[in-house]
Amino acid sequence: MTATSAPVFTGVVPPVATPLLPSGEIDHASLERLVDYLITAGVKGLFALGSTGETAYFTDAQRLEILATIKSAAAGRAPIIAGAIDLTSARTAALARQLVAAGADAVVTTTPLYTLNSVAEHAAHFRTIAAAIDAPLWAYDIPVRVHSKLSLDLLMELALDGTIHGVKDSSGDDVGFRRLLAANNAAGHPLQLLTGHEMVVDAMALAGADGVVPGLANVEAEGYVRLWDAAERGDWDAARTEQERINSIFDIVFQPKGLSGDATGVGAFKAAMHARGIIDHATMAAGVQSLDANAVEKIRGILAAHELLPAGVSA
Amino acid sequence: MTATSAPVFTGVVPPVATPLLPSGEIDHASLERLVDYLITAGVKGLFALGSTGETAYFTDAQRLEILATIKSAAAGRAPIIAGAIDLTSARTAALARQLVAAGADAVVTTTPLYTLNSVAEHAAHFRTIAAAIDAPLWAYDIPVRVHSKLSLDLLMELALDGTIHGVKDSSGDDVGFRRLLAANNAAGHPLQLLTGHEMVVDAMALAGADGVVPGLANVEAEGYVRLWDAAERGDWDAARTEQERINSIFDIVFQPKGLSGDATGVGAFKAAMHARGIIDHATMAAGVQSLDANAVEKIRGILAAHELLPAGVSA
Amino acid sequence: MTATSAPVFTGVVPPVATPLLPSGEIDHASLERLVDYLITAGVKGLFALGSTGETAYFTDAQRLEILATIKSAAAGRAPIIAGAIDLTSARTAALARQLVAAGADAVVTTTPLYTLNSVAEHAAHFRTIAAAIDAPLWAYDIPVRVHSKLSLDLLMELALDGTIHGVKDSSGDDVGFRRLLAANNAAGHPLQLLTGHEMVVDAMALAGADGVVPGLANVEAEGYVRLWDAAERGDWDAARTEQERINSIFDIVFQPKGLSGDATGVGAFKAAMHARGIIDHATMAAGVQSLDANAVEKIRGILAAHELLPAGVSA
Amino acid sequence: MTATSAPVFTGVVPPVATPLLPSGEIDHASLERLVDYLITAGVKGLFALGSTGETAYFTDAQRLEILATIKSAAAGRAPIIAGAIDLTSARTAALARQLVAAGADAVVTTTPLYTLNSVAEHAAHFRTIAAAIDAPLWAYDIPVRVHSKLSLDLLMELALDGTIHGVKDSSGDDVGFRRLLAANNAAGHPLQLLTGHEMVVDAMALAGADGVVPGLANVEAEGYVRLWDAAERGDWDAARTEQERINSIFDIVFQPKGLSGDATGVGAFKAAMHARGIIDHATMAAGVQSLDANAVEKIRGILAAHELLPAGVSA
Repeated sequence: MTATSAPVFTGVVPPVATPLLPSGEIDHASLERLVDYLITAGVKGLFALGSTGETAYFTDAQRLEILATIKSAAAGRAPIIAGAIDLTSARTAALARQLVAAGADAVVTTTPLYTLNSVAEHAAHFRTIAAAIDAPLWAYDIPVRVHSKLSLDLLMELALDGTIHGVKDSSGDDVGFRRLLAANNAAGHPLQLLTGHEMVVDAMALAGADGVVPGLANVEAEGYVRLWDAAERGDWDAARTEQERINSIFDIVFQPKGLSGDATGVGAFKAAMHARGIIDHATMAAGVQSLDANAVEKIRGILAAHELLPAGVSA
Repeated sequence: MTATSAPVFTGVVPPVATPLLPSGEIDHASLERLVDYLITAGVKGLFALGSTGETAYFTDAQRLEILATIKSAAAGRAPIIAGAIDLTSARTAALARQLVAAGADAVVTTTPLYTLNSVAEHAAHFRTIAAAIDAPLWAYDIPVRVHSKLSLDLLMELALDGTIHGVKDSSGDDVGFRRLLAANNAAGHPLQLLTGHEMVVDAMALAGADGVVPGLANVEAEGYVRLWDAAERGDWDAARTEQERINSIFDIVFQPKGLSGDATGVGAFKAAMHARGIIDHATMAAGVQSLDANAVEKIRGILAAHELLPAGVSA
Repeated sequence: MTATSAPVFTGVVPPVATPLLPSGEIDHASLERLVDYLITAGVKGLFALGSTGETAYFTDAQRLEILATIKSAAAGRAPIIAGAIDLTSARTAALARQLVAAGADAVVTTTPLYTLNSVAEHAAHFRTIAAAIDAPLWAYDIPVRVHSKLSLDLLMELALDGTIHGVKDSSGDDVGFRRLLAANNAAGHPLQLLTGHEMVVDAMALAGADGVVPGLANVEAEGYVRLWDAAERGDWDAARTEQERINSIFDIVFQPKGLSGDATGVGAFKAAMHARGIIDHATMAAGVQSLDANAVEKIRGILAAHELLPAGVSA
Repeated sequence: MTATSAPVFTGVVPPVATPLLPSGEIDHASLERLVDYLITAGVKGLFALGSTGETAYFTDAQRLEILATIKSAAAGRAPIIAGAIDLTSARTAALARQLVAAGADAVVTTTPLYTLNSVAEHAAHFRTIAAAIDAPLWAYDIPVRVHSKLSLDLLMELALDGTIHGVKDSSGDDVGFRRLLAANNAAGHPLQLLTGHEMVVDAMALAGADGVVPGLANVEAEGYVRLWDAAERGDWDAARTEQERINSIFDIVFQPKGLSGDATGVGAFKAAMHARGIIDHATMAAGVQSLDANAVEKIRGILAAHELLPAGVSA
């Protein structure tokens, strides 16, 4: 894949949630509505099949189904980068090929799961997958799920030899990300660098991030678009003010108590999307617990306080 | 699956390594020879598609190929428990069904990978998989790969409601395992409890383990069989003496330097199996680095010192 | 310090708890009674100022006070090894000198706290302290508190150059301890190796440990003495039976709910010691929460079931 | 301590390094020169006896010596907050009292070391120390050394009841710090919030931090003062440009190879301070390894490239 033809993923690139029917099947109608909502709000790209999309819980057939709907709903209005999450190189490469065939403009993947690998083996992993697909590969740095951190040296090595075209950073290591931004600039900006830390986008934009992958955009994308626009025009006070408003909405993820990380985060997003009418059901992926009524009520209250409930709907 | 009809996995149940051709394809001839070696040495069951079998690196099609060869080579002489390693419940259940259809007498699986789940979600995961297969399910406790530890309470809950029939413990928590042994005994021994810690089998047998899953048995199974027999007849001094001999052979895994955990452990086993003529090639799974000549030489030296090289072969 | 003159710490060497008055002051009368109880029960040495002794919570003046009472109560009937727990080398060496001056027959210490050190710096740390005292130094391997694990290579290096004379292993790494036992034997047994894992003493004795440091001996020392005697005469079935009885008593530490590690473990011991009349008050060190009445009641129930309450006292 | 009379620590508050003579004794002349350099450069406060000051390696007597020199050299030109680092409440409170008696305007401390405590016990720890001193107490959140993270809920509880007056955040958790900033603002700003992450000060200032504790200021304080001034006047582009210049100097800490965290970070600072003539010797605290000549040369090269070597001195 040559960098020249690579699609650009900058600005707000939300990780698209996966609406489900109460039966557990994919709710294609809601998914189409969600994609349309995001693009209308002004996002510049779509991240399909990421953690917020609950991709780990779906079979490959379901993943392709989800991607197909996102692709057709986007209708060319925004490029799509798709997550290829599986255990190891051969398995992931096979999946990545299917995703590209189904219309992904780029693929993003992590280091292997379950295995005990060295940095050299991690490098080989990314090279194997990049070689297997006719689309740009990105690296997904998410130690909380993968249990290893991608080092600055490895990322720049993979950037400079053309293996990867971008990084989605959910590492929680802001100092490391700052060093990556500097190294990438010094090397002529071979990588597009997106942060996954949606509560500090103003700060990451000031530091030089190319964009953000905010799960909360599934609930309210307009704020992130305004925030990014303010950052782009150098209006940092406006960016911060918008970030603080967003963070106040983000409090929805702190309402569920006693549930798992997956149930809490995606659960809060789905409850809020449902309350706003963006999706028809807040059903979670099979195996993930649902929010209780109390948490949902608190989430609705936060939305109401921000005037984010539809007209005529009360918290 | 009723417990009455469940196959028994006790004593020495080696995790069968996966011999590969230099091309990376499965070396069925070597695999058949390996299975025959293990059964002839007196092992009481076979653990197919575990970590030592490099299962994470194989596609589902390859996994079924591997299992089929183990099954046919075993020819009913030993029951087979097969690892079903995938991300989440639906994916793992589908794989587990395929494994049972291909002849696995039991299935063993871990908690989900990549996800952030609660204990309640872990319980649901095991229940979903157990309900999907017509064979006993075992739990695989291996925090070094899965990054969560199965609690005593969860295991006993799953034992008492019939979800799981055994545990393969590679948790590295000997105190926790001792408590599990006691709780299992107090509950009437619903679980078969195998340790994966092959350097302390004498101690685990004294503590009451039902068996062991020793990777090193791929290299020299006879020692583990003798060790277990000594333990069964209460000859603890003989058991310890045999364990100490085995541990001296186990030094092979400390010879490779600077490689990953997977390259080191399985790499040492494969190098030794190759040196002994049990398999034809020491090829590692795709993506895993190979031992250098120096490490292989040291491994051969250890084997020679224990008179484990074939007649006419020098270290 | 020459090894020839070194005191021997083998068999049962309990970590002496620190009884306190309700005012928080040291309860010397109870401490004397405790020491007498332990020695009468047959223990072969005393570990003063360890984790069970809550040493981290005491000032250096209090520590010396505690040691003085243990020393005078022991009256030469058992050697005393004292914990020197402080941040770094200079501070710890100064404390260690004071402990030796106050009668400690040996000193045991950990790697530094708070700092970020290399293995070479850890080695220098032990050498600095060993050089500062006229008594044998031991290494205390307790990663759960110190957050680093002492490696086999480091321990054997320090053993072979005479820096350390023993190891108290509370690492929770039974495979690592087994390798240490083997390396120590191969080197001519320069180290005395005690395990801190009181629930698996039978297994550790079979593996070759020189002794055990059981916190529960503060509650009931006779069982550990019987267990160790059985192991010494090679009666492993008797050793296991005694271990299982002890483990059933050890359930007292699983009764408190929702408290910290320090409050739970030492709290359960002190509650049981108080119930048995060994100490006058179950007061915890300042800053550590007390057990609630429910936990104390359950602990008394466990003691009663084992007939460990004084005559005329009911659970 | 009433908040009204509390000294203000905002803007650039460097953690003062501790210059040593080759003998290991404190180099008071260099320390005085360092303090004078910092204050002349425009810093607004001094953090004595922090991690950069290698405080863990010094005895209490040495700590008081260091503080006395900083106090007299500061001569009232900047308030001093002093680290009280010891194991537990009673020990730390005694030390904190001595620090206040020696002139500290405020004290900062961590959660206990070595112990296994609950959040409730952490709260009690801070309350015990606050009650023991007639000066404001701050909380030091540094999980990499203390191995526990101070939660938002605990910090705000301690803020609202007047126990703590500020937080020095070296947690590496920028999202958590952002939430703390928001909660503190919502509560009327009871806490002064300083970040220890010196590579992202522009971003932290944009987010609302009250100041920064930059170790690198020991090498070049003027840049941090300019950066903070730019941030205060809302010139975020200037702040970022200055941050990027500073980060390029900060590369000095990535030059040493194979050393510990303490040897590397403070070692690089001391080598650079020595090269610049701010201190007379780069001697490390006892027990910490020194940089090799190659690392020192690379550090001098970085300084030279930034024109930070004295006139007539070449890299």
